Amino acid sequence: MRPELLERVLSLLPEAGPHPELARFYEMLRDYPRRGGKGLRSELLLAGARAYGVREGTPQWESALWLAAGVELFQNWVLIHDDIEDDSEERRGRPALHRLHGVALAINAGDALHAYMWAAVARAGVPGAHEEFLAMVHRTAEGQHLDLAWVAGREWGLTEHDYLQMVGLKTAYYTVIVPLRLGALVAGAQPPETLTPAGLALGTAFQIRDDVLNLAGDAAKYGKEIAGDLLEGKRTLIVLHWLGQAPEDQIAVFLDQMRRERPDKDPEVVAQIHGWLLESGSVDYAQRAAQAQAETGLKLLGDVLGAAPEREAARALLGRVRELATREA
Amino acid sequence: MRPELLERVLSLLPEAGPHPELARFYEMLRDYPRRGGKGLRSELLLAGARAYGVREGTPQWESALWLAAGVELFQNWVLIHDDIEDDSEERRGRPALHRLHGVALAINAGDALHAYMWAAVARAGVPGAHEEFLAMVHRTAEGQHLDLAWVAGREWGLTEHDYLQMVGLKTAYYTVIVPLRLGALVAGAQPPETLTPAGLALGTAFQIRDDVLNLAGDAAKYGKEIAGDLLEGKRTLIVLHWLGQAPEDQIAVFLDQMRRERPDKDPEVVAQIHGWLLESGSVDYAQRAAQAQAETGLKLLGDVLGAAPEREAARALLGRVRELATREA
Repeated sequence: MRPELLERVLSLLPEAGPHPELARFYEMLRDYPRRGGKGLRSELLLAGARAYGVREGTPQWESALWLAAGVELFQNWVLIHDDIEDDSEERRGRPALHRLHGVALAINAGDALHAYMWAAVARAGVPGAHEEFLAMVHRTAEGQHLDLAWVAGREWGLTEHDYLQMVGLKTAYYTVIVPLRLGALVAGAQPPETLTPAGLALGTAFQIRDDVLNLAGDAAKYGKEIAGDLLEGKRTLIVLHWLGQAPEDQIAVFLDQMRRERPDKDPEVVAQIHGWLLESGSVDYAQRAAQAQAETGLKLLGDVLGAAPEREAARALLGRVRELATREA
Repeated sequence: MRPELLERVLSLLPEAGPHPELARFYEMLRDYPRRGGKGLRSELLLAGARAYGVREGTPQWESALWLAAGVELFQNWVLIHDDIEDDSEERRGRPALHRLHGVALAINAGDALHAYMWAAVARAGVPGAHEEFLAMVHRTAEGQHLDLAWVAGREWGLTEHDYLQMVGLKTAYYTVIVPLRLGALVAGAQPPETLTPAGLALGTAFQIRDDVLNLAGDAAKYGKEIAGDLLEGKRTLIVLHWLGQAPEDQIAVFLDQMRRERPDKDPEVVAQIHGWLLESGSVDYAQRAAQAQAETGLKLLGDVLGAAPEREAARALLGRVRELATREA
């Protein structure tokens, strides 16, 4: 995220407490924010605020920055917990927080960071923002539940529709819908209804691209372990499409690996499955699906932003959303 | 908690979602609240509100009920995460949530319940309440961090002062200090400064009593596994006192068990240690310490409540706090 936003996030977090061990706790809270996420979602919020007429240096801009800090805090506490839930090894090129400090301390640090998010929301003082953050947490947790329940239940009999419902909840609200709605709210505008279907399509495009990059991306640019989704047994559009057309012997090998907990998976066999997926047409299929979702979303968003007061800022926002929905890393 | 409060808590939680699997998620959110906690903290808040002049049936009382629902939601999401952090087996006579659904789904459910707490706070609409809930989450998480960091670090070289700092943070804020401050705030009163030292002493008494009951209580009344603290390697005043005077061979046996993860602890040896602790004077020592803290806290609170407008309600509150600080189950 932009340096002034990181500073704002860190300004909410404590530095020293009544016991030396608490300094370590506060360091845990600062760790993920300091690892330098891209700040996609906060930038979307700020670009949305500009499109709706908020100018830098005004009290409304100050509120927008607090909401943007809140969105970044959301991203960071959720990642701490996600990394535990998925038992991920790395985050932004370093070991995941629970791999550095253990699961118990990392859950607790995520909880504290969650509450600091609400401190940022309160500082913004924007009517309606509290409800947006509630919706953001709830939709994301619902999507996360579907994702995790399917992993826990070894559930592979899923349709593309199931997948789209899951990523709509898990990704679209916190990545696109809520940042854009907050951008309107901070300007005192009522968020247009069409932001929701636009954001659903764009967030879905973003997540499918993420799934593709996870399998076929450049490790150095991507910042997460390549094929980590396979090790974590994630349902992706690629895998669901592949399961519908792959040879039966390959499917049997796949399901055998997916029945196992992560430490019991055979890395060589997983690498072989990874190869099958890359050679199949399923990555291309997912690319095309992402492209179609991105076009739908951009069309809807373009129509909505036609009514936004700041035309140039609206165009800048649309460009930013296009990058996000068609990203290469 | 009282039935009308449970209803209010449940009224905030969703019933049906866009996917059948989400019904299971919503059931997870309702599970702990429905298991019937005692509602000590919400009753303290309501008794405090009455002492400061809030009457049932007024809009202020309605606000008090929403804050009380928030305090209960806090308790429940924290317990879900605590049970994972401590790898507890049971909660209120049933398996802990993560033992029913796995760690990943239970972390996620706790996060969602956390956000519903903030929905309750917003519904109350009481100026200053947001800050109180922030303080409650942060102090509790700090205390929890100390507790867990000592377990993770096999740290037994701790003083009574360390213990008191930890329980002051971990227990006193959410059990006594914040409920009492919220009771004043909902009545439009500025919470007296002395509520903090009073609540620290009373919350500490409560926690020491809890430690004693965990070792020496009646399983049926207590609702948690007896000696669970030993299996979880918890630092308690009893153990810290005992370590200062126990025979070296007993200490060696104790430390050997405490070096082990919970599944590797030997139940027979832990039972033997349990016996040593019960036979030592350390349980009595802790009882006396709890008694002294309770007396200090009740004296301070009695003085503060001397200035509360509703004398009879203030006396009822003091009686309730006395029960809490000297509880038998």
